[in-house]
Amino acid sequence: MPILQIHLLQGRTLEQKKRLVKEVTEAVCRSLDAQPEQVRIILAEMAREEYSIAGTLLSDRP
Amino acid sequence: MPILQIHLLQGRTLEQKKRLVKEVTEAVCRSLDAQPEQVRIILAEMAREEYSIAGTLLSDRP
Amino acid sequence: MPILQIHLLQGRTLEQKKRLVKEVTEAVCRSLDAQPEQVRIILAEMAREEYSIAGTLLSDRP
Amino acid sequence: MPILQIHLLQGRTLEQKKRLVKEVTEAVCRSLDAQPEQVRIILAEMAREEYSIAGTLLSDRP
Amino acid sequence: MPILQIHLLQGRTLEQKKRLVKEVTEAVCRSLDAQPEQVRIILAEMAREEYSIAGTLLSDRP
Amino acid sequence: MPILQIHLLQGRTLEQKKRLVKEVTEAVCRSLDAQPEQVRIILAEMAREEYSIAGTLLSDRP
Repeated sequence: MPILQIHLLQGRTLEQKKRLVKEVTEAVCRSLDAQPEQVRIILAEMAREEYSIAGTLLSDRP
Repeated sequence: MPILQIHLLQGRTLEQKKRLVKEVTEAVCRSLDAQPEQVRIILAEMAREEYSIAGTLLSDRP
Repeated sequence: MPILQIHLLQGRTLEQKKRLVKEVTEAVCRSLDAQPEQVRIILAEMAREEYSIAGTLLSDRP
Repeated sequence: MPILQIHLLQGRTLEQKKRLVKEVTEAVCRSLDAQPEQVRIILAEMAREEYSIAGTLLSDRP
Repeated sequence: MPILQIHLLQGRTLEQKKRLVKEVTEAVCRSLDAQPEQVRIILAEMAREEYSIAGTLLSDRP
Repeated sequence: MPILQIHLLQGRTLEQKKRLVKEVTEAVCRSLDAQPEQVRIILAEMAREEYSIAGTLLSDRP
């Protein structure tokens, strides 16, 4: 029953996201002996104005 | 003080979402003896390219 | 495919939690025409030292 | 390693969001003796149709 | 900057969790061309009384 | 209506957590012109076995 939420920056291609969910699901199944059908992944894409490191939005970092 | 986050697929009508928050809030209040004013719900709508089951994005499932 | 996360204070009985997930699931299915088997709920219980309103932990509120 | 997620209503200016992540990061560092570089903040903006209090979407509240 | 949260049932060994974060991190890096140091994973373990499918807590399912 | 969730490592004192929610709430109110009563914070403490950077649990990092 693993449920994953992945926050990532916008800008990845659809191909990258397809590969991401496929490979992460396989990694979860190998590690936990889980059934693939039970692994659900929510992708949450963030703009650079929605993510901050050290008090500065990514859109303001060099 | 219950706080709920509900992830659902895009495509529901505004009427469905109004009914959803109304009925879920009532269910929480009945079950937990909570006051309605304390029940907060965050709706997070996902595109079919943002949700994966068994390693495949919903947009690629039949 | 609705996935819910419910943050609630510790101290509810198991019976209350059983009723909570049953009634919330029914409310989701009625509102969204979803299948019950697709509705997954994560309960996250918080101690009064883990929740703050207006800058004060609940354990310090009268 | 504090990781924060902040749900807020849409409509704040970019300047307000810059100030928000700066001041919240400083507050976290002062309180926890954390290094700024370790503080990550995810901003999640909600439309008024995505947030409910007492069973009513904000877009329907007076 | 990918940040992952993984909800899984309690009962996995420490070895399984070590393998999980290692293999999931590698899958994220391969798929997104991300640097390992940027991948952070929060594990959130749930008791069977904290997770519901189809309106029934896992502790009550056969 | 800002709702914050803060993931932090276990081991902080109650005094540190009291200061954290007080100062973060003040920072949110100053930045967003929000009312203190509307600011809710969920603290989620993680053990070192529940958090991974670069594919390694914190409990295994030097």
